[in-house]
Amino acid sequence: MAPLGERSDDPVLPDPPQGPLHVARARASFPWKELALFWEGEDTLRFKKAIFSTLENDPLFAHPRGSRLSVEKYQELNFLRCKRVFEYDFLPVGDMLGSLPRVLALIECLGMYDWSLAAKFFLHVLTFGSAIYSSGSERHFKYLPKIFSLEIFGCFALTEVSHGSNTKAIRTTAHYDPSTQEFVIHSPDFEAAKFWVGNMGKTATHAVVYAQLYTPGGQCHGLHPFVVQIRDPKTLLPMPGVMVGDIGKKLGQNGLDNGFAMFHKVRIPRQDLLNRSGDVTPEGAYVTHVKNVGQRFSESLGSLSSGRVAIVGMSVVNLKLAVSIALRFSATRRQFGPTDKEEVPVLEYPMQQWRLLPYLAAAYALDHFSKSLFLDLGELQRGLLGKDRSVRQAELGQACGGHGYLAMNRLGDLRDDNDPNCTYEGDNNVLLQQTSSYLLGLLARRDQGGARIESPLKTVDFLDGYADILGRRFEGSSPEDLLDSSVPLAAYEWLVCYLLRESHQKLSQETRSGKSDFEARNDCQVYHCRPLALAFLELTVARRFHEHTHQPRVPPPLRAVLQRLSALYALWSLSQHTALLYRGKILPWTLVTELMNPELKDDAVALVDVIAPPDFILDSPIGRADGPAPLLGLLTVSRPS
Amino acid sequence: MAPLGERSDDPVLPDPPQGPLHVARARASFPWKELALFWEGEDTLRFKKAIFSTLENDPLFAHPRGSRLSVEKYQELNFLRCKRVFEYDFLPVGDMLGSLPRVLALIECLGMYDWSLAAKFFLHVLTFGSAIYSSGSERHFKYLPKIFSLEIFGCFALTEVSHGSNTKAIRTTAHYDPSTQEFVIHSPDFEAAKFWVGNMGKTATHAVVYAQLYTPGGQCHGLHPFVVQIRDPKTLLPMPGVMVGDIGKKLGQNGLDNGFAMFHKVRIPRQDLLNRSGDVTPEGAYVTHVKNVGQRFSESLGSLSSGRVAIVGMSVVNLKLAVSIALRFSATRRQFGPTDKEEVPVLEYPMQQWRLLPYLAAAYALDHFSKSLFLDLGELQRGLLGKDRSVRQAELGQACGGHGYLAMNRLGDLRDDNDPNCTYEGDNNVLLQQTSSYLLGLLARRDQGGARIESPLKTVDFLDGYADILGRRFEGSSPEDLLDSSVPLAAYEWLVCYLLRESHQKLSQETRSGKSDFEARNDCQVYHCRPLALAFLELTVARRFHEHTHQPRVPPPLRAVLQRLSALYALWSLSQHTALLYRGKILPWTLVTELMNPELKDDAVALVDVIAPPDFILDSPIGRADGPAPLLGLLTVSRPS
Repeated sequence: MAPLGERSDDPVLPDPPQGPLHVARARASFPWKELALFWEGEDTLRFKKAIFSTLENDPLFAHPRGSRLSVEKYQELNFLRCKRVFEYDFLPVGDMLGSLPRVLALIECLGMYDWSLAAKFFLHVLTFGSAIYSSGSERHFKYLPKIFSLEIFGCFALTEVSHGSNTKAIRTTAHYDPSTQEFVIHSPDFEAAKFWVGNMGKTATHAVVYAQLYTPGGQCHGLHPFVVQIRDPKTLLPMPGVMVGDIGKKLGQNGLDNGFAMFHKVRIPRQDLLNRSGDVTPEGAYVTHVKNVGQRFSESLGSLSSGRVAIVGMSVVNLKLAVSIALRFSATRRQFGPTDKEEVPVLEYPMQQWRLLPYLAAAYALDHFSKSLFLDLGELQRGLLGKDRSVRQAELGQACGGHGYLAMNRLGDLRDDNDPNCTYEGDNNVLLQQTSSYLLGLLARRDQGGARIESPLKTVDFLDGYADILGRRFEGSSPEDLLDSSVPLAAYEWLVCYLLRESHQKLSQETRSGKSDFEARNDCQVYHCRPLALAFLELTVARRFHEHTHQPRVPPPLRAVLQRLSALYALWSLSQHTALLYRGKILPWTLVTELMNPELKDDAVALVDVIAPPDFILDSPIGRADGPAPLLGLLTVSRPS
Repeated sequence: MAPLGERSDDPVLPDPPQGPLHVARARASFPWKELALFWEGEDTLRFKKAIFSTLENDPLFAHPRGSRLSVEKYQELNFLRCKRVFEYDFLPVGDMLGSLPRVLALIECLGMYDWSLAAKFFLHVLTFGSAIYSSGSERHFKYLPKIFSLEIFGCFALTEVSHGSNTKAIRTTAHYDPSTQEFVIHSPDFEAAKFWVGNMGKTATHAVVYAQLYTPGGQCHGLHPFVVQIRDPKTLLPMPGVMVGDIGKKLGQNGLDNGFAMFHKVRIPRQDLLNRSGDVTPEGAYVTHVKNVGQRFSESLGSLSSGRVAIVGMSVVNLKLAVSIALRFSATRRQFGPTDKEEVPVLEYPMQQWRLLPYLAAAYALDHFSKSLFLDLGELQRGLLGKDRSVRQAELGQACGGHGYLAMNRLGDLRDDNDPNCTYEGDNNVLLQQTSSYLLGLLARRDQGGARIESPLKTVDFLDGYADILGRRFEGSSPEDLLDSSVPLAAYEWLVCYLLRESHQKLSQETRSGKSDFEARNDCQVYHCRPLALAFLELTVARRFHEHTHQPRVPPPLRAVLQRLSALYALWSLSQHTALLYRGKILPWTLVTELMNPELKDDAVALVDVIAPPDFILDSPIGRADGPAPLLGLLTVSRPS
């Protein structure tokens, strides 16, 4: 293969264009193309370049991307683009499970172009498609070719007007009628209408609808998914008994048609129950291999885990775009200076470095975290499809649920599209509560003389050293020791163990005082369980990044810069908890991220070159690869008199 | 006068409509109408009600407010509404200076309706109009009737493409030509084009343009304001030599036409120099009563201070809208519960209380701060117009500059319009640097054996007890003592003195190590001067709220709830600095805002009733006064087949 970036007609990594950013770029301590290769791998680099070039060369994708159009025009255009992405067939369906890095790269490329497009595409293929594939059985495989040919267009209908996070309380019903061998799907009132469903507003013909399954005699067997046709694929008119529509303008992602639906005694064939966790015989008997109701409930919602992992990835992509724009602009925008005559780029100010560079480190740390978590999820899903129901598989799923916590971004233009990442698939605080309960459960089992604490992803294994870790102190160390991320990681482990002990004590105390479990748990969230869950998740991300940057296969010229990024990220993240570190008296010095900034400052523009997409995709005049674009050409001048 | 809220045909404070919120409202510990009267005063209540009713009854103001229209339609509609507001003449010009609470109430009412409208109106009347009135002299008064009759429409053009915060570096020039007795206004290149100017995009006919004034012979006398006609008032076509246009779509406030302009040797009469701080004789001699260049510079930008105070007010209005929506929704939205059958409103969860109630306290604390600061500013401006150039006046101006720091908000719909509050009239960090320099200067003068530390607004007087305050400890106190805001205030004073000492030491150390002033100051910002400025500003807000809620004229039934709000605000604000309090070992206990929340929770809905506008203005289905609106009626249903 030709060396990357070699001067050929079409190098995978072309040199950045000359311009005002050239000076800043020349100061980098490392070769950025080598880092790009190490970070992405050659296959992914080529794959992404092919997608980006295809979009750039197709007039259908010419900007405006959509946020400047009316909602109606934007939704129309977005559907046409979605169709075109299907036609390009960047990643043939058969390759998807076998090439997870490419799936992730496709999400990233489409999302960097426009989240409305990415959402529309993946809601149909992955969310709707894989709900059918993984919650159904052979009798549902007939839907798959229709999904890939776009003969039908799908959506995933779980949330209702009055119930989002509390999925158990969902009120849509599915009564089985043995006389016709049909289920009757019904929404008792508007509070129980399906709501927020992406693709449902205007384009979906079919929905996976979650409803409480009742057998004749009135027994409820809990939430189950059903395939329900909601529109005629030819006319897009609603099916009889279905009231469906668009929920209207949102803060962002307006190219996506989010919808609502109410069902008035809509009859569907018995076979359209997605029967992986439970089925109904033609006569009306409920049969299941999962005896435990709770486990059945979790299993029927298993497909949400992949959504949550994807949310981590989507947030990171926004962060990468945002830091690219902010750092390129800061490296060229001049304001004030040592004298009235001389102005310096704002990135030269320690304040600006302190504001921005940690987010650059975070973009790398979270990018790695998101990709590696996605691969772990792939392992889980291969297991699920292979009906691997071992304890290890169950635990792997649980750990992924809690990990789905992330929300950081900087620039306004990306913010509106990123907003839903902070809430969909469950309020973050609900997920945090699940995470802390999981950790407290591990501690309880250990105290009852249980076995070693360990988990498939090894995120909790350190808790086995709980008592020793609580005894850690760092008196002998100096602030300079923080330049290696192993020191903040050791402090983080102490922090998690400390919060685990405090949460456990607080919970016991609340319970002993006579409160119910519900009350006791609620009264421990704010200052105990919530910080515990956050610290644990932050440690997990920081540890993965530390391990990735310290492995032997990191090319020598990249080691210094990657290890500085790792140290800055760990330290910055830890510095949110300074008060607890003081209370615990474990660090004898202040956590000052300033130490790290001056060195990274000169590498910042080159680090951005590795994660930024081409200018056509980044689509930000102040974030252009050669430096800010001349504004004048972009403006509309009034007609002269 | 009829009692407020009396059952008459048109009570000033009507009872809230019955609905799901009734239960929560009934739990309040205090009479909300009495609080509304104490908080606003009867005159303001009546004034606001008149404005709100007028808008609600005029079809021109029927929603959509604009964010759902195309930019062009929105700007057109906004201009028509602005014109109509002039016609209503809610506050005759002659009354403005005499009735500052009404000015503030008018900003609030128009802003609550739509910030694009408020901005358009006040940029013309207050920013453009008062720049002419207060920077000019009698020869400019001819413009005033034209402003009020809308014969001309104005904008304020300071910022350029490449210079926002560093106003000294502005590059537009005004060369005086004695042969024709004209100034020649010129933009050397596009980097020096005026940019971001509100009203300039499409509607302004005149601009106050800031330019470097040169006299024949080439001497530069610094930045001065000039009145420049940019469009023909009849045709709205640009004047010869003026290239002007709209800067395009923004994140928010798209009803406002922000513009840019370049001047190509545009000639204006000598008299159109706004000559308050300096003038040029017909022959070309520069004359000024302000000998000091720096002072002249500050004076010529004095009108920015009123802008900054208004920014505080605008942010608070957004906060009031946001907490109204969030708390009303939280008091009725049910999710999860002690059993699967019973769900509780999310506001009953300690986590939700902890997330929301401090913002309710902040809305009250900052509302009071903003109003009282506005009245202080009024005092300053009356002084300026009366040519009161005493030291007291100069100091009053300086203190207002630093106070302009605020940025908090919650809900997305308000966020886009609020964004500019975080940056306009100077990057916040620049303002913070000015504030810390001011405080360090006071300390230095005191150390040189100077007089008592005091300022007209008394915000720094406590620093006179610097040494004693640094010795404060709170060993004898208990967490319950925090239920009164005097304890967190005393801790805040310690914090400011501590940070002042640390900043002073760090700055001396950096200077001794041989760094230039510029470098030394930059290297002290992140961990020293910036937190110093923030802590000082937070203390100032918390102290004003404490004094307001503890004064004898607070009606007895309102004392308990207002003092709880004051304590929660002070404590919540202080809790950002827990790490420093630990380091200083001054508080023997943890700062737990939870203590305050359960009591305030039951008052929350009634507290919101006092600050929320009528439903037509709040315009948020989930924030309606009777409880969330039935969604179904608001949605568009697809046509059935």
